[in-house]
Amino acid sequence: MTNEQLFPLLDEFQIEIPSWGFADTGTRFGKFHQAAAAATIEEKIEDGGEVNRLTGIAPTLAVHVDWDFKEDQDPAEVVKLAAEAGIKIGSINPNLFQDQVYKYGSCTSPLENARQKADEHLEKCIAIGRVTESEFLSLWFADGTNYPGQDDIIARKRRMESALKKWHDAMPETMTMLVEYKPFEPAFYHTDSADWGMAAHFARKAGERGKVLVDTGHHLPGANIEHIVAFLLDENMLGGFHFNDRKYADDDLTMGSIDPYAVFRIFHEIRNAAHRGTDVSKIAYMVDQSHNLKPKVEAMLQTVVTAQELYLKACLVDRNKLADFQANTDIVGGEELLRAAFYSDVKPILSAWREAKALPADPLSTYRASGYEAKRANERSARRPDAGKGTSYA
Amino acid sequence: MTNEQLFPLLDEFQIEIPSWGFADTGTRFGKFHQAAAAATIEEKIEDGGEVNRLTGIAPTLAVHVDWDFKEDQDPAEVVKLAAEAGIKIGSINPNLFQDQVYKYGSCTSPLENARQKADEHLEKCIAIGRVTESEFLSLWFADGTNYPGQDDIIARKRRMESALKKWHDAMPETMTMLVEYKPFEPAFYHTDSADWGMAAHFARKAGERGKVLVDTGHHLPGANIEHIVAFLLDENMLGGFHFNDRKYADDDLTMGSIDPYAVFRIFHEIRNAAHRGTDVSKIAYMVDQSHNLKPKVEAMLQTVVTAQELYLKACLVDRNKLADFQANTDIVGGEELLRAAFYSDVKPILSAWREAKALPADPLSTYRASGYEAKRANERSARRPDAGKGTSYA
Amino acid sequence: MTNEQLFPLLDEFQIEIPSWGFADTGTRFGKFHQAAAAATIEEKIEDGGEVNRLTGIAPTLAVHVDWDFKEDQDPAEVVKLAAEAGIKIGSINPNLFQDQVYKYGSCTSPLENARQKADEHLEKCIAIGRVTESEFLSLWFADGTNYPGQDDIIARKRRMESALKKWHDAMPETMTMLVEYKPFEPAFYHTDSADWGMAAHFARKAGERGKVLVDTGHHLPGANIEHIVAFLLDENMLGGFHFNDRKYADDDLTMGSIDPYAVFRIFHEIRNAAHRGTDVSKIAYMVDQSHNLKPKVEAMLQTVVTAQELYLKACLVDRNKLADFQANTDIVGGEELLRAAFYSDVKPILSAWREAKALPADPLSTYRASGYEAKRANERSARRPDAGKGTSYA
Amino acid sequence: MTNEQLFPLLDEFQIEIPSWGFADTGTRFGKFHQAAAAATIEEKIEDGGEVNRLTGIAPTLAVHVDWDFKEDQDPAEVVKLAAEAGIKIGSINPNLFQDQVYKYGSCTSPLENARQKADEHLEKCIAIGRVTESEFLSLWFADGTNYPGQDDIIARKRRMESALKKWHDAMPETMTMLVEYKPFEPAFYHTDSADWGMAAHFARKAGERGKVLVDTGHHLPGANIEHIVAFLLDENMLGGFHFNDRKYADDDLTMGSIDPYAVFRIFHEIRNAAHRGTDVSKIAYMVDQSHNLKPKVEAMLQTVVTAQELYLKACLVDRNKLADFQANTDIVGGEELLRAAFYSDVKPILSAWREAKALPADPLSTYRASGYEAKRANERSARRPDAGKGTSYA
Repeated sequence: MTNEQLFPLLDEFQIEIPSWGFADTGTRFGKFHQAAAAATIEEKIEDGGEVNRLTGIAPTLAVHVDWDFKEDQDPAEVVKLAAEAGIKIGSINPNLFQDQVYKYGSCTSPLENARQKADEHLEKCIAIGRVTESEFLSLWFADGTNYPGQDDIIARKRRMESALKKWHDAMPETMTMLVEYKPFEPAFYHTDSADWGMAAHFARKAGERGKVLVDTGHHLPGANIEHIVAFLLDENMLGGFHFNDRKYADDDLTMGSIDPYAVFRIFHEIRNAAHRGTDVSKIAYMVDQSHNLKPKVEAMLQTVVTAQELYLKACLVDRNKLADFQANTDIVGGEELLRAAFYSDVKPILSAWREAKALPADPLSTYRASGYEAKRANERSARRPDAGKGTSYA
Repeated sequence: MTNEQLFPLLDEFQIEIPSWGFADTGTRFGKFHQAAAAATIEEKIEDGGEVNRLTGIAPTLAVHVDWDFKEDQDPAEVVKLAAEAGIKIGSINPNLFQDQVYKYGSCTSPLENARQKADEHLEKCIAIGRVTESEFLSLWFADGTNYPGQDDIIARKRRMESALKKWHDAMPETMTMLVEYKPFEPAFYHTDSADWGMAAHFARKAGERGKVLVDTGHHLPGANIEHIVAFLLDENMLGGFHFNDRKYADDDLTMGSIDPYAVFRIFHEIRNAAHRGTDVSKIAYMVDQSHNLKPKVEAMLQTVVTAQELYLKACLVDRNKLADFQANTDIVGGEELLRAAFYSDVKPILSAWREAKALPADPLSTYRASGYEAKRANERSARRPDAGKGTSYA
Repeated sequence: MTNEQLFPLLDEFQIEIPSWGFADTGTRFGKFHQAAAAATIEEKIEDGGEVNRLTGIAPTLAVHVDWDFKEDQDPAEVVKLAAEAGIKIGSINPNLFQDQVYKYGSCTSPLENARQKADEHLEKCIAIGRVTESEFLSLWFADGTNYPGQDDIIARKRRMESALKKWHDAMPETMTMLVEYKPFEPAFYHTDSADWGMAAHFARKAGERGKVLVDTGHHLPGANIEHIVAFLLDENMLGGFHFNDRKYADDDLTMGSIDPYAVFRIFHEIRNAAHRGTDVSKIAYMVDQSHNLKPKVEAMLQTVVTAQELYLKACLVDRNKLADFQANTDIVGGEELLRAAFYSDVKPILSAWREAKALPADPLSTYRASGYEAKRANERSARRPDAGKGTSYA
Repeated sequence: MTNEQLFPLLDEFQIEIPSWGFADTGTRFGKFHQAAAAATIEEKIEDGGEVNRLTGIAPTLAVHVDWDFKEDQDPAEVVKLAAEAGIKIGSINPNLFQDQVYKYGSCTSPLENARQKADEHLEKCIAIGRVTESEFLSLWFADGTNYPGQDDIIARKRRMESALKKWHDAMPETMTMLVEYKPFEPAFYHTDSADWGMAAHFARKAGERGKVLVDTGHHLPGANIEHIVAFLLDENMLGGFHFNDRKYADDDLTMGSIDPYAVFRIFHEIRNAAHRGTDVSKIAYMVDQSHNLKPKVEAMLQTVVTAQELYLKACLVDRNKLADFQANTDIVGGEELLRAAFYSDVKPILSAWREAKALPADPLSTYRASGYEAKRANERSARRPDAGKGTSYA
């Protein structure tokens, strides 16, 4: 395919990055502190702006309410800050797991006060979303149980149905509700929204702007994620993605670092759907991963570039030829077409596209050469002399 | 609970056994032949009748079309034979995987002749079902692909939707269509009906008598099956079960042989739903496992008795007390209630119930003492002097 | 079997409980605080003493250096405190993962200062172990990498070999070194001691008092743990256990809460080895689980009682009869023997044994009736008015 | 790196292909027959010769005793046939699973006659190996149990130890014994040689020419195979590979078809070991996969070319640079080095190398254009008019 055909496809592809991707995170065994890690919404916007400035395809920043919007934080101020950094506020991510009241769940808890707290929090999130003009309310639930007999699975199902309906109806019409699923962690016996089938059920019950969010790390071993994606797309129920990679469980490694061919196959199904006439323009591509050890901004740049490369590779598949192979049950022929696209060297195309956009040809090297990280490490350490005093697992 | 309360629950619990459970089966590496294995529908009915005679709770025999109904087999004759053995013909199981034409799928194949063959086979199956007055048409699909690019996942999805609708509408009104799912094997890249969410979708699209069949061995590692069961029940989409146990993949071991507490929890969710007022009387409990090494009839007796024991244990949970513990977030209290029921010695209750029904107190020992197996081994070996000449994997 | 035969077996069975089992722990998404959670070594000893007082089989408390032995803590003082509570200090557990210097590993880190810190910490641990007269130095390593290319796997292997040899040789002769393994978490690409084969290699290289510690939650899905246990026992390489249960990954649920038959099978292999003449008297049975939601002491009592029950069930298997069934390839016969033992009601035997020991017949109910938890909640909350101010994942 | 540096590495890389890769195979649900499938050793040699003729790197053909050497087959004749096709006979693969006597295991069976049959078969295999001058005796065991209690795990372990020692000592000094492992299938409760730790134990006990064979499909979900490979290499216990790919269990798909980056990482560890000075020249690279649906020769060509490409990519990693990144804990730097090598377009280098060897630039296209398959389909169908009359699962 020619650059003329490919550039418009590249122009359309954007990926949202999460504010919490610039903050210190860790495992239950501890957090390793980075001097340049962002701690405030101001610093996160600064980092997010840098990633977008270097890649040109990360114009929105997902925010996590409570982490990013403290009590006294004015959302309009945040919008302004973002604009100054050349980006916008993206999806609104409520926090329904951190408060002590959520010990037995949030909207599914048997405790009235937990459910009420969740309702109040969602009200606040939707209000913020109105100010930030966010298109997506992105719901991840830690809700579930740890032991057989702990709670009534169906009572919890019904509580979730009614909460989501209520919240859906409270959203402005411009907002889409994304319902995530996850098989386990932090709930270790049953998770209320455990798989795509349950998430699709809850999203449908919530209302017509309810869609499913696929987090690539939230599947049992072996799950064929591209199949789920294709299925949801064909049912008009795919809302978007939280991208990350994993080898074992929800490892939250950077996208494409473990199994890049699997990511390519997801994009392949999306391009296939587009070829078939399905509208794929509303899919929210988002990153959600935990750079425990990698430097935050580097990891995000690596991720955004990887996403773009793998997406472009998927665009290279000759879909008419593929349909021919498939009609003739030529398994090897069809497969080789995919492999050829996957192994294609797309760096020249991307360099040309970046040049046309006045972007650096290699965002990661440009960043490494810029001194950005050292500068932020100094500034931010000075602001937080106590950072890095770790917490303890037990 | 008293025997007066429990006996009616035991009276209601019946489990269907599969004709192919009495036949020689194996793995791809070969079959180990048993002299007493059943090879004809006559022999299978003989064995099925024996299991029901000894347990009193296995009054129907599932049949596999093609294996049990050869070209010239008159279904009415089979019904008569079954009646003479004191049982009835149960669910009808089409075979959509063995014929060479199904190499690339049956109803989802890109090949017209494969789809047509599947249609013709289903017509035949439904016709047999009318004669046998079977309540269930039980559909398992081997359909899928082995390699990325082999076929178009969504084209296949749409083919399956339309086939199932057609077959659903061809069924008599007394028949329910059960749609099974399985993550992999024999398809190793994608399986067209891969999980409960897909099966529920296909069942719903087929029509109102479309329901989901849960085969306990058809899940990815870690899947919480009782959660899926509870969810389907609450949506009125649970059709029934294929019981078996597994440690790794679809190992097809005998029910409760590896993780009996998991089976107990499935029955617990069903009894919980009943307590909540959900109609659980239509659930088809069926066995589907492969007794590669165990003697066939012994394995089936062991299975039927295990099912009854685990079901009875689930009946023992005090559900009002459980609701109290759950309302008070008393995790240990709720869990101990389940554990107490699971570890209860139910043998005395079952002996009493069997005595009341004029059944042997211990079906397996009675069978072992009866000489049934040696007798059948002699008869059947004589009929098939060449049996046991194995096939080769490669 | 008679009580006369079983009581001596019960007398031999003891299980060590971990000090950190009484402290607040959580997941990476947060900790839910319990008012009665223990925060100091004094409180942990108080709780450990209570569990032993009620069960009679938990006479030692595992300690975690750094969590339990702050800079100024005198180990002799801790020993005295424990003695006053009727218990002893058990295994010594170094902490090689929490300090910021361990970001890239401890003894396997490419950084000299990390390895040195680990050496110093181990020296301290061994010194404490001398004072506490601990029999076991129990080593769990978080060491590993998150990304392909991050470090040289073999360079790390060799570093671990040499560190373990050094530490082994520094131990007093009365001490045994236990080497744990874990497939992943917190390392998500490769873990330096990832499976029993690697742990056995490291233990052997360390020296003759190096043995393997099996944490039941540290296996990939499907792993047959009892097989590993039997194999290690036959090679004289089994050091002991960290018991807990799991459904998905290293969920750290309470022992026997998800798959109790699997625990029974582990004890079955140990009793089988004893029957064969293998010395099983030195196996260290230890608990290591995370009671995120369950009340700490309740969870520990439930665990200790469960361990005792499942062990006793394994003692009930008639091993001569089993050998007969196996010699005759009677699969169903052998299996039914195990199942009969597993489903046996052992509560009467345990009540009789407890009565003979002047222990409460039902430790958990006795505890619940005692008011212990409410009393500690009051006292400990008063000491720590700020407890429960959670930490944040990001 | 220059072609001058890379060509010698390419010259060294050879991969053995299995005779059974050209035969019809299937799953337990049936076999789909291919008209061009090879059924005799003559046809298999013909196909193997074709693959080597087109690729230049597959000079040996693994044989399966019993499938390839019928009673009256003279091994010297087979050697001659192979020589005429330009290849040699490679590893000898005994068949210890197909005969009815192996129902409860081969060398681990509690039955004397099964163990004796295994001994006799191995004698025959070793005798064949002497004639064929094979370097490897490659042992895969289906041995294991399906149910808890079925047999004594340790008695079986000891039987395997003694059998392997006996066979090892019967081998000519030029032969190496490869011991394979597999977590499950066809044994579904425990497998006697279940993981690399057990295989290494058995190989060591057998004698100094005992090594481990890593079949890439024989691992539990998530296992880090390259870690195992590196570990075995460093212990001088790596014998070789059976390559194939999988998404779920032992799916036996073609190498690199599902997760090519994982294969690259295995080769990366081998090249890393070579860089460190480990002798990697004796590693037996072998293919073992089941082309159920793909045309046999096509699938093998695709596999051999894929292996060569991924190996070459691993050769491109700059190992001095990598060591620098690792010493400086530059995670992103080290990782990007691996990714750059993996995504490199190696086709030009391979075309040049093939040209230098007078080989076709693109073996698969050349084959497709040659008419080989149609010709063999005609010939072989004519020889076997009944082929394709399927077997039945039940």
